[in-house]
Amino acid sequence: MTSIIKVGIVGYGNLGKGVQQAIEQNPDMELAAIFTRRDPQQLAEITGTVTEHISAAEQYIGKIDVMILCGGSATDLPEQTPQLARLFNTVDSFDTHAKIPDFFAEVDKAAQEGGTVSVISTGWDPGMFSMNRLLMQSILPEGEDYTFWGTGVSQGHSDAIRRVPGVKAGVQYTVPVQEVIDSIRGGETPQLTTREKHRRECYVVAEEGADREAITRSIVEMPNYFADYDTTVNFISEDELAAKHSGMPHGGFVIRSGRTGGGSKQIAEFGLKLDSNPEFTASVLVAYARAAFRLKHEGHKGAKTVFDIPLGHLSPKSAETLRRELL
Amino acid sequence: MTSIIKVGIVGYGNLGKGVQQAIEQNPDMELAAIFTRRDPQQLAEITGTVTEHISAAEQYIGKIDVMILCGGSATDLPEQTPQLARLFNTVDSFDTHAKIPDFFAEVDKAAQEGGTVSVISTGWDPGMFSMNRLLMQSILPEGEDYTFWGTGVSQGHSDAIRRVPGVKAGVQYTVPVQEVIDSIRGGETPQLTTREKHRRECYVVAEEGADREAITRSIVEMPNYFADYDTTVNFISEDELAAKHSGMPHGGFVIRSGRTGGGSKQIAEFGLKLDSNPEFTASVLVAYARAAFRLKHEGHKGAKTVFDIPLGHLSPKSAETLRRELL
Repeated sequence: MTSIIKVGIVGYGNLGKGVQQAIEQNPDMELAAIFTRRDPQQLAEITGTVTEHISAAEQYIGKIDVMILCGGSATDLPEQTPQLARLFNTVDSFDTHAKIPDFFAEVDKAAQEGGTVSVISTGWDPGMFSMNRLLMQSILPEGEDYTFWGTGVSQGHSDAIRRVPGVKAGVQYTVPVQEVIDSIRGGETPQLTTREKHRRECYVVAEEGADREAITRSIVEMPNYFADYDTTVNFISEDELAAKHSGMPHGGFVIRSGRTGGGSKQIAEFGLKLDSNPEFTASVLVAYARAAFRLKHEGHKGAKTVFDIPLGHLSPKSAETLRRELL
Repeated sequence: MTSIIKVGIVGYGNLGKGVQQAIEQNPDMELAAIFTRRDPQQLAEITGTVTEHISAAEQYIGKIDVMILCGGSATDLPEQTPQLARLFNTVDSFDTHAKIPDFFAEVDKAAQEGGTVSVISTGWDPGMFSMNRLLMQSILPEGEDYTFWGTGVSQGHSDAIRRVPGVKAGVQYTVPVQEVIDSIRGGETPQLTTREKHRRECYVVAEEGADREAITRSIVEMPNYFADYDTTVNFISEDELAAKHSGMPHGGFVIRSGRTGGGSKQIAEFGLKLDSNPEFTASVLVAYARAAFRLKHEGHKGAKTVFDIPLGHLSPKSAETLRRELL
């Protein structure tokens, strides 16, 4: 591959910024433009590069090989991916698991009509974790698998805390239960409830004079978010929150414990320990942008997932080099 | 996929037996015949199924969808894979890393001519470990990766021990150095010598009256095999060897520690803990036999590696089911 892959970024939150940074780590790629719904001129001062209003995207047909869509799964991507997949090869991190089949169908239709390749739902979960679940289940058809998340910041749960009356600011960490992980690594295959797999740790800044007991009760009893978990609530100062809890770490494990045909126990595990969740997700998106570009050049079209794409397409190296250096 | 995949096994050592057992765990597969260089009638009493001399393989064209080749990399596979790839789709675990490029070229020629698909060098290393090295390097282009093997039995090193004068029997374990693994998991990226990564533990049964000090010296000073490692030699009885050291455990880790564009530390790890190395390798071969069958039906031909094959091809489930259940 000698040609440089020209990439566009749609949306410039933490993920979009991570993509911009990741592109600089990949010499076979070049950032063509960033697209935003905000005022592009103002945003250009932050991005430091060509910044356009999203409505100008169409003018970049032929100038951009792959658009990396960095919006959210709730409202941005369901609208943007089908629209842009008609015009460009795209990559996104759509992560509402239950809605993936419908999303796939809609994006596939758009990409088939546009003659483009659209890689949906990549990142680390869905993404690398999904790949490992599939790989491990295919190799060990008799067994159990377990996915643990954390220790990491959950944006949704942190938002839920901040909506509690009397709470000024807060962060929630999802924490996998170490004893359970150790038992699985040791060969046990327990049936686990939600409560047994993860704990939730909250760091909360209370408003002055707020009733801390009432806040704690509101959090730990909150249905869907906290009621099914062992939840701890720690009150801290605003300074401590800023100093110790402003990062976006995350990670987790996929473990499969199975038995092969002769009865032997076999355990496979994939894990991530990420200091920055958005930067890592961005790096996955960028590797899959390379794959989208290649698939398109091979004549493919339509929606694709991590299950459809040969791993070799993620690397800038040739198949020959990969066989020699990495196999 | 409604049709049953008909599989042949070539070679019936530990790996071939493991493949026979693995096929029974996969309802979409069926064992058609086992091929051997030994006396097929005698072997049939052990296999309990159709057992043929290898020279009869050609008679199975059209009756076998995929041949799984279970011979060794030193002499069996370099001869058998190109021969059989002209006639059948094949899968093998050729693992002489330095010779993979030449082996690929030769097998590719044969499979192109035969119009077949030949998946070479699969298993766990080369195989799953290679896939993780590729995946992690593509996502984290700036970083270091580390492969550790063990704790597990090395057949080559065990054979080397048994050739030392005065040694009646023995087993060698490759042991990864835990402190080094811990430091990498903690975020360090050390440059490591061979000695710093793995230890070698030998369990030896000495012949009566043998000079144990001389045996120990011969082992720990043996070039290529032991001289570059910290090696311990333990003398044990024949009974203890049989009771405690007759299994074939193995495993290891691939760890990549890198930094994304914003400077954040990110660590990805894949690990295996296998009670039976040959049974697990056999299970990988069987999953890739399914992939070979599918690739052939899609119109592909030639030699393929784990880098060329979409993960979805490993599973008996449809792409739709995989997206719904595992993504």
